[in-house]
Amino acid sequence: MTDTAALLERIEQLEKRAQAAEDYRDLVNLQGAYGYYVDKGLWDEAAQLFAEAGTLEIAGRGVYAGRARVREYLRHLPPYGHGTIYNHMQLQPVLHIDSAAGTAKGRWRTLMMVGFLGREGRWGEATYENEYVREQGRWRIARLHGIINFYCEYDEGWHRGGVKLLRSIEGLAPDRPPSIEYEAFPESVIAPFHYDEV
Amino acid sequence: MTDTAALLERIEQLEKRAQAAEDYRDLVNLQGAYGYYVDKGLWDEAAQLFAEAGTLEIAGRGVYAGRARVREYLRHLPPYGHGTIYNHMQLQPVLHIDSAAGTAKGRWRTLMMVGFLGREGRWGEATYENEYVREQGRWRIARLHGIINFYCEYDEGWHRGGVKLLRSIEGLAPDRPPSIEYEAFPESVIAPFHYDEV
Amino acid sequence: MTDTAALLERIEQLEKRAQAAEDYRDLVNLQGAYGYYVDKGLWDEAAQLFAEAGTLEIAGRGVYAGRARVREYLRHLPPYGHGTIYNHMQLQPVLHIDSAAGTAKGRWRTLMMVGFLGREGRWGEATYENEYVREQGRWRIARLHGIINFYCEYDEGWHRGGVKLLRSIEGLAPDRPPSIEYEAFPESVIAPFHYDEV
Repeated sequence: MTDTAALLERIEQLEKRAQAAEDYRDLVNLQGAYGYYVDKGLWDEAAQLFAEAGTLEIAGRGVYAGRARVREYLRHLPPYGHGTIYNHMQLQPVLHIDSAAGTAKGRWRTLMMVGFLGREGRWGEATYENEYVREQGRWRIARLHGIINFYCEYDEGWHRGGVKLLRSIEGLAPDRPPSIEYEAFPESVIAPFHYDEV
Repeated sequence: MTDTAALLERIEQLEKRAQAAEDYRDLVNLQGAYGYYVDKGLWDEAAQLFAEAGTLEIAGRGVYAGRARVREYLRHLPPYGHGTIYNHMQLQPVLHIDSAAGTAKGRWRTLMMVGFLGREGRWGEATYENEYVREQGRWRIARLHGIINFYCEYDEGWHRGGVKLLRSIEGLAPDRPPSIEYEAFPESVIAPFHYDEV
Repeated sequence: MTDTAALLERIEQLEKRAQAAEDYRDLVNLQGAYGYYVDKGLWDEAAQLFAEAGTLEIAGRGVYAGRARVREYLRHLPPYGHGTIYNHMQLQPVLHIDSAAGTAKGRWRTLMMVGFLGREGRWGEATYENEYVREQGRWRIARLHGIINFYCEYDEGWHRGGVKLLRSIEGLAPDRPPSIEYEAFPESVIAPFHYDEV
């Protein structure tokens, strides 16, 4: 006869594995939603995807710490509207989830198409090394760290050299200095990996 | 001692959660397959991915209702062959699935590379807000709604203004008018979201 | 009263389904990791993602068989460094997994941005039809087959014709001839599908 305690143990394991599968879908949705909000300058909606203590660090501009500061940072970016393209496609997840702990790490990339009618058109591409936390039952961004691989003028392409990083947001100093020092293309940069093995 | 009815209830819950995980993979495969078929002008194969009553609405051209009409629409597009590029990359899913009901909604985007040798080369990008239904045990597209964010000439880029939407397919009137009115870049457009929260 | 054997059977089924969900996440991570390594010329790390007997075939250059030969192939590519862009975005999975057998097939695409400062800038796009195997408890690439849809000069775009395939790696003959014969854009090419139905 099968031991009920053994069955129960297997069911408990299955419940943990079911949770991990749901966590995966939630995290892919979360990062995708971030991209759709950023595309359209929906800054408050994007900020809501961060944990209460979540941090944002992009393009060597330093760390903005806490959801309120993330919102402030985002609101300093140009508004979406007529003549604006601000596409940030969220691509290629490599996700490692500790479901029991309610934490996760993810490598992603974004392909960027940025433009202002009659004034500027740029391609860009960045690697994210992000962290996530389950907070009040929902996955939230604990750390968004975007390392820019390149920006270039549409009219020039990447092979004539890139656009140097803009290392600060006018009128909004970060809470902490950048966590890594680098320059984008034509310099080489390899965003640190959160994993050794897959 | 553990109650068998309680164990059974947990097993039933796990079976529902396992189904949802399979649904997720099937839906990602489905939308991906749609893109690969469209890339190569495999119109009948693409149409087979739609539900019997599935609808297609792209670029403000109105709604084509039912799989037969979807197929007719697709067959009116230029054929794939020598000198043609018709890439429709399917990217960035935000999926919400009601597994028990056999319905789902998904936000996706497509990055498009369209071209005809010696004649036309264009970038484009669109947001999809799609619906899905499980029909005879298989997930099918119940509604494909593509909202174009921009088209531009490769030689111009997006910053010099986009290409206006072509609002009809020659010789093929839609079954219903467009569900939303908009113009692509340089006008601003935000595809409605099927979700408030992720 | 519920039969314990029936409960046990349902639990065993659930364990198989949980495994399949984990396999899916592992495979998406695996292919994503491959792309991030290739981006940065981390050839040994990329080669480690192949099975012991894994094969690599790209752009009609023939088949390189076995992990050691895959590594050798990759090491013949230009190194990553100052002035180099080698982006290989891994996109749009259609995955079919036989979890019990420990085998899987996947259709993917890569959007490529390749460049050398002051010398060359190219867009490219390819379809992969890959196979995977679970080896010593880890998913590995059993076959990577990349079929190039197009390469073009950034300064020309795809509508003025593409760049012909470079059909060999200097100084490194393949182990087997190409498995399919084709030419990229402006010729038409449809990578064989590993599936009839999704």
